[in-house]
Amino acid sequence: MNKSRVETFSDGVFAIAITLLVLTIAEPSNYNRLANQLGQRWPDLAAYVVTFLVIGIMWLNHHTIFRYLGSVDRRLIYLNLFLLMTIAFLPYPTGIFGRALAHGRGATTAAVFYSVTMFLNACCWAGLWLHASRGRRLLVPQFPEGNRRKMAIMFTGGTGAYAIAIGIAFVNAFACLAFHGALAIYYALDPLSRGAEREMGGDGDLAGEVET
Amino acid sequence: MNKSRVETFSDGVFAIAITLLVLTIAEPSNYNRLANQLGQRWPDLAAYVVTFLVIGIMWLNHHTIFRYLGSVDRRLIYLNLFLLMTIAFLPYPTGIFGRALAHGRGATTAAVFYSVTMFLNACCWAGLWLHASRGRRLLVPQFPEGNRRKMAIMFTGGTGAYAIAIGIAFVNAFACLAFHGALAIYYALDPLSRGAEREMGGDGDLAGEVET
Amino acid sequence: MNKSRVETFSDGVFAIAITLLVLTIAEPSNYNRLANQLGQRWPDLAAYVVTFLVIGIMWLNHHTIFRYLGSVDRRLIYLNLFLLMTIAFLPYPTGIFGRALAHGRGATTAAVFYSVTMFLNACCWAGLWLHASRGRRLLVPQFPEGNRRKMAIMFTGGTGAYAIAIGIAFVNAFACLAFHGALAIYYALDPLSRGAEREMGGDGDLAGEVET
Amino acid sequence: MNKSRVETFSDGVFAIAITLLVLTIAEPSNYNRLANQLGQRWPDLAAYVVTFLVIGIMWLNHHTIFRYLGSVDRRLIYLNLFLLMTIAFLPYPTGIFGRALAHGRGATTAAVFYSVTMFLNACCWAGLWLHASRGRRLLVPQFPEGNRRKMAIMFTGGTGAYAIAIGIAFVNAFACLAFHGALAIYYALDPLSRGAEREMGGDGDLAGEVET
Repeated sequence: MNKSRVETFSDGVFAIAITLLVLTIAEPSNYNRLANQLGQRWPDLAAYVVTFLVIGIMWLNHHTIFRYLGSVDRRLIYLNLFLLMTIAFLPYPTGIFGRALAHGRGATTAAVFYSVTMFLNACCWAGLWLHASRGRRLLVPQFPEGNRRKMAIMFTGGTGAYAIAIGIAFVNAFACLAFHGALAIYYALDPLSRGAEREMGGDGDLAGEVET
Repeated sequence: MNKSRVETFSDGVFAIAITLLVLTIAEPSNYNRLANQLGQRWPDLAAYVVTFLVIGIMWLNHHTIFRYLGSVDRRLIYLNLFLLMTIAFLPYPTGIFGRALAHGRGATTAAVFYSVTMFLNACCWAGLWLHASRGRRLLVPQFPEGNRRKMAIMFTGGTGAYAIAIGIAFVNAFACLAFHGALAIYYALDPLSRGAEREMGGDGDLAGEVET
Repeated sequence: MNKSRVETFSDGVFAIAITLLVLTIAEPSNYNRLANQLGQRWPDLAAYVVTFLVIGIMWLNHHTIFRYLGSVDRRLIYLNLFLLMTIAFLPYPTGIFGRALAHGRGATTAAVFYSVTMFLNACCWAGLWLHASRGRRLLVPQFPEGNRRKMAIMFTGGTGAYAIAIGIAFVNAFACLAFHGALAIYYALDPLSRGAEREMGGDGDLAGEVET
Repeated sequence: MNKSRVETFSDGVFAIAITLLVLTIAEPSNYNRLANQLGQRWPDLAAYVVTFLVIGIMWLNHHTIFRYLGSVDRRLIYLNLFLLMTIAFLPYPTGIFGRALAHGRGATTAAVFYSVTMFLNACCWAGLWLHASRGRRLLVPQFPEGNRRKMAIMFTGGTGAYAIAIGIAFVNAFACLAFHGALAIYYALDPLSRGAEREMGGDGDLAGEVET
């Protein structure tokens, strides 16, 4: 099993999950009051937008990580499979979250359920990175040693951030959704991986891949 | 993140969104009057056909644009992600548009909702092009300078065309759908990008890619 | 737009349509009589199997045709887009066909609807081939002249075969489904294209592609 | 039709089937009792997780087998198409299995239905391997002769294992689901194919593909 196969399969799952997401938005039930009904569905739309960005940014970070890998082993493939499971599962809690917020019923439960899914997802990311980077097991030689530890801290911290999201879910479901949006933006800015790229910038072949 | 990765992921989202679209056509509810019910669903079918062509032609133009790019940067990837969001979202307003026209209820709202989605999509296209072409930031060297401005005008004009579509939606929902079909055909004929290809035709490698 | 891009996008639509098909099988409504209900759904399953094979064999023949093409032009891309539309649309008439046969209501209408979709699909295939092969416009030089005409006859005949399917639909809906299955098997055996491959077999590069 | 095309199409079907699976989980019907309702859906989740792992591991083993193939013929492509049909069909029995276990009604029927689907899938795997390996028809020269027979035994034994699963379905539906999970884990450990890789390890090009 070579690395690019795993990436192509993962890309497929990312692309399908992000596109399937639209099926989670509840359809209008009464076309006589369509404008009203679409207006009431704004939490469905907000949950859609947040999860779309979450999956899109994860796709981006998935590639960043795989660019740092020189090889893959069977355990990494299975860890990646669990990671993909938490992502492919996201449309389910997203739909429930949006509908619960729109109905104003079950919102706390839905926010907890969504946050627990994201927490499990964060655990998979951390597991993937720790497995790949322990003793530089699967890393490319150019990957800077300092970033190895920084990224381990970032991924471990990610599980903590999503644990906090579970806590926020108990306080306020809307705040919880906003917190997930904020975390997505944080990962989009992606400070640590940028650092690694800068340090690896001198290496022609990797830097070239970034630019082309 | 290299250019071909972004294209492959985008292609995946285009292909999935265009194929998922079929799920938006309302299923018959009464099989005793099946012929009758299928006949009443012609607006669903019309909305399906128009949106299918819209997405198919966007896919084509997406490649045209990416052929003009020599490199991609992080901002372009995010602009592309927002573009994909508006496309992946299309099955939702398409289904509502078809059903509202078939029911004869909520048609104005549905036409406005569909047109607003397409307007946001046009804004993403314009943003993508303006970001990529400003100061020739990401363009290939062979791209003719004259076409850079023409395409900027075309994309900015696109947002205007879809703003007009919103206006038409308030007048007549069927005319609005027809207008969207006409715009799709206009972009299919694609006069400006053809001009660019003709001018770049002298360059062996890009012209070759067009032909092979 | 190069040929392999069109093939990859088409492959995506084929793969998604063939996999989405499972969503057309009606879910059981009463779990107390589950065995009974699943038994009553055999026409849903039969329609699923026939359409799955139809799409799978079309995918295969799509590649056969594209292997004969040395280049693609804009018109071919649009003809291909219409072809993909008829394929992406198939889950809708398939679901209706299976359900109508299972209910024993609306079966004639459903069979006609399914057959008309397949007829339009056959027209797209014929249009695609006639456009590509007229004056050998887009064919590879090695493609044998004799097969050009044989395949034009086969594709034109295909539209006739599906016109007959529409006729059979008016007589007996089950016989119509069986006829579609038989046509799929006929195209799977694919005598004409095999002839072309045999004749082109002397050419190292194309024959090599067949084997590897 | 070259080998990599078949693999890419198969990968697409695997990726779509594994991601569509999420649509099989029954949505909550009462948001006032959301926590309760999600709790009652644990068998839906269990069926989801088991089938996700089943498809993921099949994807992995599909690649292992295709790595051993030096070429593909038309019959293999059709056998592969039948294999993909059983996989693309899996969301249907999975959804029914989960719901039947959650409702406590029709569980035996659902377990038998799921197990029969998996049994047909195992038959396709066995047919694929027996066709490809008979007389080393399609195998790469480096593939060790001893593993050819071992893998034939493994695949034939696989049909036996899934026949046993059908038997267990009649005894206890939950035990049947657990048995399917155990079989997935068994195939994940994949002792025979590992042996083949070890023996082929001396060959630079195949071993390299494993690592890179």
